[in-house]
Amino acid sequence: MNSPLLNQMIQRLSRLPGLGPRSGRRLALFLLKHRERLLKPLLHALSEGCDKIHPCPTCGYLDELSPCRLCTDTKRNKEVLCVVSEATDVWAIERLRRFKGVYHILGGNLSMLDGVGPKDLRVASLLERLQTTPPKELILAMSPTVEGTTTAHFVMQEIQKVPISFKITTLARGVPMGGELDFLDNGTLELALLDRKPF
Amino acid sequence: MNSPLLNQMIQRLSRLPGLGPRSGRRLALFLLKHRERLLKPLLHALSEGCDKIHPCPTCGYLDELSPCRLCTDTKRNKEVLCVVSEATDVWAIERLRRFKGVYHILGGNLSMLDGVGPKDLRVASLLERLQTTPPKELILAMSPTVEGTTTAHFVMQEIQKVPISFKITTLARGVPMGGELDFLDNGTLELALLDRKPF
Repeated sequence: MNSPLLNQMIQRLSRLPGLGPRSGRRLALFLLKHRERLLKPLLHALSEGCDKIHPCPTCGYLDELSPCRLCTDTKRNKEVLCVVSEATDVWAIERLRRFKGVYHILGGNLSMLDGVGPKDLRVASLLERLQTTPPKELILAMSPTVEGTTTAHFVMQEIQKVPISFKITTLARGVPMGGELDFLDNGTLELALLDRKPF
Repeated sequence: MNSPLLNQMIQRLSRLPGLGPRSGRRLALFLLKHRERLLKPLLHALSEGCDKIHPCPTCGYLDELSPCRLCTDTKRNKEVLCVVSEATDVWAIERLRRFKGVYHILGGNLSMLDGVGPKDLRVASLLERLQTTPPKELILAMSPTVEGTTTAHFVMQEIQKVPISFKITTLARGVPMGGELDFLDNGTLELALLDRKPF
């Protein structure tokens, strides 16, 4: 009973992460109702983004500049290289305004479920980068999830295929700020106890 | 630190209902990552929809045909006219596969909070329609919320300005199917008791 175009719009909106058939329908209507105020600006932004934003050939960050503004920023210390899974992780670290090194974005984590294999990650370009411009420190900053840890181990294994003259570090694990011991999972508490530090 | 285009994309996605800054960021990345599979088809569907789908001049339903396929469907009984607030309400009723009349979509409910006033609703076209092609029955099918009830009363008041030769009805109110009396709000239970029917 719906128009095919409306159905197509609903179906494609419904496929976005976090949306479903019901929210897709509501969103389609909402966009058509606010055509000038919402739909047209959104369309413009999406089509500009689609045409102009591309992964940086060096680090994999998304930018319309190539290389991206993180890689060309002269204030950044190229000798500290932080390897992360996704651009969202760069954002999380940048929010701290603390880290002044550069990044390498793998583009995901190894995951059987999502069908992400070794070839889908930007590991070859990482190895090349490590050989052409070796850093003084390499930080493996994957999330401490099953997929993140697997990916970190895989990257570590691949790195060992090239000559290493740099320090390899990873994020500290322990009790998170504000976390109550009583509510903490056993794994985290055990690690925090094993890695205990002088007060 | 982000590219202006990426920021623009994130900002416009974040403004959509149900999304916020965080989900907007994730969605922007997800779309750029799945450019061919998701972003391009979505762009195509949105721009086609934006250009071609418009409210039906008769009933206000969204369609690329004008008048829409509900209004031109010869199997539908034009003598029963159901007035609803939004196209989503048409979908809710159409899911029943039970109602075979036609619709009139007001395009919202009166709402001080959302800044929707009498002039934002398609009431003038309803009055015109009632005079040119008077139905036998007019169903006021607004949701029994504060805004819905206010809108129904407003429409009722406006309708009385034109000569009425038809029955005006509204949806029955009472205990919903599967609803436990103990968990029901007082208003609904009171109405269900007052409107009790022979068993």
